[in-house]
Amino acid sequence: MIGGSLALALRKRRPDWKLKLWARSPASVQRTRELFPDTTSEIAAAVEGADLCVLCTPISAMADLAENIAPHLSPAAAVTDAGSVKCGVVQRLEHILGGRFVGSHPMAGSEKSGLEAARADLFEGAVSILTPTPRSLLPALTTIRQLWEIVGCRVVEMSAAKHDEAISLVSHLPHAVAAALVNAINRRLPEAPALAGGGYRDSTRIAASPPALWRKIFLENKEELLTGLEDFSTMIDDLKKLIRSEDAVALEAFLARARATRERLP
Amino acid sequence: MIGGSLALALRKRRPDWKLKLWARSPASVQRTRELFPDTTSEIAAAVEGADLCVLCTPISAMADLAENIAPHLSPAAAVTDAGSVKCGVVQRLEHILGGRFVGSHPMAGSEKSGLEAARADLFEGAVSILTPTPRSLLPALTTIRQLWEIVGCRVVEMSAAKHDEAISLVSHLPHAVAAALVNAINRRLPEAPALAGGGYRDSTRIAASPPALWRKIFLENKEELLTGLEDFSTMIDDLKKLIRSEDAVALEAFLARARATRERLP
Repeated sequence: MIGGSLALALRKRRPDWKLKLWARSPASVQRTRELFPDTTSEIAAAVEGADLCVLCTPISAMADLAENIAPHLSPAAAVTDAGSVKCGVVQRLEHILGGRFVGSHPMAGSEKSGLEAARADLFEGAVSILTPTPRSLLPALTTIRQLWEIVGCRVVEMSAAKHDEAISLVSHLPHAVAAALVNAINRRLPEAPALAGGGYRDSTRIAASPPALWRKIFLENKEELLTGLEDFSTMIDDLKKLIRSEDAVALEAFLARARATRERLP
Repeated sequence: MIGGSLALALRKRRPDWKLKLWARSPASVQRTRELFPDTTSEIAAAVEGADLCVLCTPISAMADLAENIAPHLSPAAAVTDAGSVKCGVVQRLEHILGGRFVGSHPMAGSEKSGLEAARADLFEGAVSILTPTPRSLLPALTTIRQLWEIVGCRVVEMSAAKHDEAISLVSHLPHAVAAALVNAINRRLPEAPALAGGGYRDSTRIAASPPALWRKIFLENKEELLTGLEDFSTMIDDLKKLIRSEDAVALEAFLARARATRERLP
């Protein structure tokens, strides 16, 4: 979905750019070719002569892919990824590719996956976080920043460690909470989906995300996510106390604080 | 919002019906008259001759309102409400109004409130739960069922007790969780709204709901909501254990169960 959306967005916004797509399996090469004729399963053919490579694979596949592209890259080529956890990826890929690699995390997507879910406007208005290090080469960073700006992102830079902490809170924690919420409701009320209103619908949308992908993300960012879940459990306990004691003033203040924070969303 | 949306929907779907609106304060009578000229603050004028009265006020105001309308109701008039907790309301209003009162809960709304947020299509496709009792009069139940069907609801009947349990899970719990999630994230990462993607946006939308309204709902349905929050805390603890122990198979199964349940939403 991310790779396909990026290719659609670039074809629309930069029709003069030469795009090459790579997919691993013959079946997905064939499917991808229906949208993008210049798709290959040959690493060398995909990478040679490119100014910029974007790796849009699960995090667990990235180091091997980086090893495979490294011998075929032009000297000036920049490389980035679109993974949603950065510390491990940045460490491994910078080790393999050097300062030409700068990590990216475009904060766009949905509960859907695969090329069928790709959309040219997926990145419009989204934040894309770049995680440069002291080794990062400025031309690579500039190229990668421009890439995300071209497809409509607002670009923010921070360290990989800060990214993983922030994203554990703003993305991984909501995903974990949505899944737990659906499972908790379902255990007591299997007919819940038939009674649900917009609140259930929206607050659980991301519980329909691909389980294998999110299992990997949760384990890749394990410590940060566990810290976030601890904080969240404490906040739930605080809320239970306010309700149990019928402390109307403090309960309303709790809800008003949440509303004021939520209304700061741009 | 609920009362205004109902009036807009009825005016559109049943232009031959005579609608009268009531509001308490002169200021809101004046505002409402811009949309509905036939608005009054006189209880008797609003109620006399009506076949059906729908009370769309906070739960805490309903018993007084029922006392005030009772002397002016036609013998055959049916009365319902739109409150989101039913046991207490049904008990109090049935005591005052008899079997002509049947409780309703249209599961529609948003984080917005007030007449400005009213929409003629608010109820289209929503579930409306009716909570009749053995005292309920069949003509009243029929009239009230037709009302919600006319504005586009799918009507479901259950006891007030079953309603309050089900809704504590499918509506109140998600609201409580969304507020706690926003507050937990904000405590560690005040800049979260600037980094947020669609997951945070959707899963916290209902945290922007009116605090005073939801404080009342939470306290009105206190015991059921606390039970739901206990269940949810246990589920979060289960999830933490799966992540901490890096049990990839069970973690993926947890997420897959949530996805399969979420995908049962009609």
